[in-house]
Amino acid sequence: MRAELVSIGDELLIGQVINSNAAYIAGQLNAVGISVARMTTVGDSEPEILRSFESALKEHDVVTVTGGLGPTHDDITRNAVCKFFRTELIMNDEALQNIRQRLARRNIALIKRNEEQALVPRGCTVIQNHYGSAPGYLFQQEGKYFIVMPGVPSEMKGMVDEFIVPYFSERRTGTSIIHRTLKTTGIAESMLAEQIGEVHTLFPENSGTTLAYLPGPTGVRLRITVHAPSRTDAEQRVRDVEMKIRSRADRYIYGSDSEELEDVLGRILSERKLTVSVAESCTGGLIADRLTNVSGSSNYFERGIITYSNESKITELEVPRSFIDRHGAVSREVAEAMALGIRTKSTTDIGLSTTGIAGPTGGTAEKPVGLVWIGYSDRTETIACRFNFVGDRRSIKERASQAALDLVRRKLLKIES
Amino acid sequence: MRAELVSIGDELLIGQVINSNAAYIAGQLNAVGISVARMTTVGDSEPEILRSFESALKEHDVVTVTGGLGPTHDDITRNAVCKFFRTELIMNDEALQNIRQRLARRNIALIKRNEEQALVPRGCTVIQNHYGSAPGYLFQQEGKYFIVMPGVPSEMKGMVDEFIVPYFSERRTGTSIIHRTLKTTGIAESMLAEQIGEVHTLFPENSGTTLAYLPGPTGVRLRITVHAPSRTDAEQRVRDVEMKIRSRADRYIYGSDSEELEDVLGRILSERKLTVSVAESCTGGLIADRLTNVSGSSNYFERGIITYSNESKITELEVPRSFIDRHGAVSREVAEAMALGIRTKSTTDIGLSTTGIAGPTGGTAEKPVGLVWIGYSDRTETIACRFNFVGDRRSIKERASQAALDLVRRKLLKIES
Repeated sequence: MRAELVSIGDELLIGQVINSNAAYIAGQLNAVGISVARMTTVGDSEPEILRSFESALKEHDVVTVTGGLGPTHDDITRNAVCKFFRTELIMNDEALQNIRQRLARRNIALIKRNEEQALVPRGCTVIQNHYGSAPGYLFQQEGKYFIVMPGVPSEMKGMVDEFIVPYFSERRTGTSIIHRTLKTTGIAESMLAEQIGEVHTLFPENSGTTLAYLPGPTGVRLRITVHAPSRTDAEQRVRDVEMKIRSRADRYIYGSDSEELEDVLGRILSERKLTVSVAESCTGGLIADRLTNVSGSSNYFERGIITYSNESKITELEVPRSFIDRHGAVSREVAEAMALGIRTKSTTDIGLSTTGIAGPTGGTAEKPVGLVWIGYSDRTETIACRFNFVGDRRSIKERASQAALDLVRRKLLKIES
Repeated sequence: MRAELVSIGDELLIGQVINSNAAYIAGQLNAVGISVARMTTVGDSEPEILRSFESALKEHDVVTVTGGLGPTHDDITRNAVCKFFRTELIMNDEALQNIRQRLARRNIALIKRNEEQALVPRGCTVIQNHYGSAPGYLFQQEGKYFIVMPGVPSEMKGMVDEFIVPYFSERRTGTSIIHRTLKTTGIAESMLAEQIGEVHTLFPENSGTTLAYLPGPTGVRLRITVHAPSRTDAEQRVRDVEMKIRSRADRYIYGSDSEELEDVLGRILSERKLTVSVAESCTGGLIADRLTNVSGSSNYFERGIITYSNESKITELEVPRSFIDRHGAVSREVAEAMALGIRTKSTTDIGLSTTGIAGPTGGTAEKPVGLVWIGYSDRTETIACRFNFVGDRRSIKERASQAALDLVRRKLLKIES
């Protein structure tokens, strides 16, 4: 089955609110074998709404509509739905009961505007709202499904998780859709495509399997999508493609799906009972921030020092003043001394450091914006690697933090650079 | 003029990526008097793409297309554009030059796949890409505008800000639409609404002016939108509403539009030639990361220490061991000692500290997840404030970093808490 998601609301069209509802619904529908063919956003205008209903239901099997069910003047979806299905509003007792209880809990008196929220179109299956007032509706006709939900994310999610997903799970037949994302870093999209080779060497064309390259500032994600008759079959196909990709580019793949590099690195450090400390200059605390986003990171992250001034590099990390004078703060020598200094001071197994020029000012011909030295120190070696990153200040910080965390991962997994 | 925004990419339809591009483009088009009537998302499928182009250009004056311009096999937008306008690809020298320079800066060899990114449809105006490889295109025919841009947000934003906005600004006629966002922190949405009062006391109903409350994890944004016959008129009306709001809630407003709290604080510190250092525990480097996101922050940010272990609090910041033993690491006494310790050690004017329980584990009945002490020290006083934040680990880090930066702002501006 193929779906169209219709989102209603002027706040979306003026860019005031980012439409995260559509992504959520799409992900959940995918999980029950319904692929989304189109997403449409229209404003609070009845003709536009009716036109979108018309074309969505004509072309697709499942239509979801979100937004415009609230109690105020600009909530016109419910009347548009009645007009579209040539029906009228009737009172739904369960919804009314729900609204009364909600208001009573909050000590708010019931006014007519609240009661009216329990009116629903005649002929629909009512989807009760466990997280708010306005109920949702499901119309089923001629093998097609038309679902209307509130636009408030928590209310919509409640209906999707508790009603829509179980409803279609019971009815599902046919296709299973599985996605798997492999996350890479340290290689450009075009080079990665060269490494992996032509897509037809991974899977036959028109086999229901696709591979997408999704580049981002800290790496390229590879998304494998499989449509197959059964879940088992789909899982097997995904595994096959993943294995082929890994045989060609495994060294660049640090994790999968929603895993972040700091999650992966945290797991490796925990398993090996290793500790890490960081000395950051140009990344300004971002590496420590990422490491400490992981619950349990206090087991392996001991401390971090952000030595933004030259003086702090010398006093906190015992970087020899002569290194800074001779080579500059952004140099191999200083990066190495910082990594060694933080490791020694904190008595951790690993010391990690960054020193570079995040820009937009401060670059020279010899040391341009984006030049970053990343230092690494453990019991057996102290080294530094040079990088040239592009982008604005924030992108350079992000890319440098990613490269630094990946350097530790590669060292621990003995992946040669 | 009315616009339709077409977004292309399977990653959007499966819910892997939230479509923030459409909101950004909508906001920027609004600013030059173009209202968005519809947003459509389709997948990487040529028939679907062509159908969306057809209907968008038929019904609207301006069409923007984003996504699918990369170098890999699933990037099919460019060919679809050629087919749609019945044209062919030609090499664009400026784009090729840009790609060569980008790769050279990163010491990457040019391969054919890279060069091909400089191919553009014959007959379009080329929009050069200053933040990536793939150029954009503008087709103008019969008073309509058809714009194609990459889907990578930074590249798209560069083209919108540097090309699209100036392009339409020059051609604009009719209504001016202006948005102004006032950013607050430290007050709940309902309390803020009480402070500001009924909307009709700010501006007359149906006057083309609206006010939206946009709550987020680090504060509530207030968005004023004005439609007026001229830009001067619109600016005057926005100023009037802003003044009224400020007269009622100025103490909570730290900045406006795209300003972050760290930008505002950085400006105050620079103006007063004051320096700051931070000692972070539960925020794990996020405060330093935010401070160093500001270009020029090395003038006032001296150093940061992330003391994740108790031992590091003692050795780095001279927090008395007895404080930790007696009151626990998450306590007023430790927060104050950390702020004083970092200020003394770094000889900055201000020392700022955090210690708390970011969760999801580690909470107790007495000290629950979300409890955070924020310490502040300057020449005249050393204090700490207690906060109870809600949310997941990341939200608690963000809320704590915001409260910490705002504490410094209020201290410097002598705003009583």
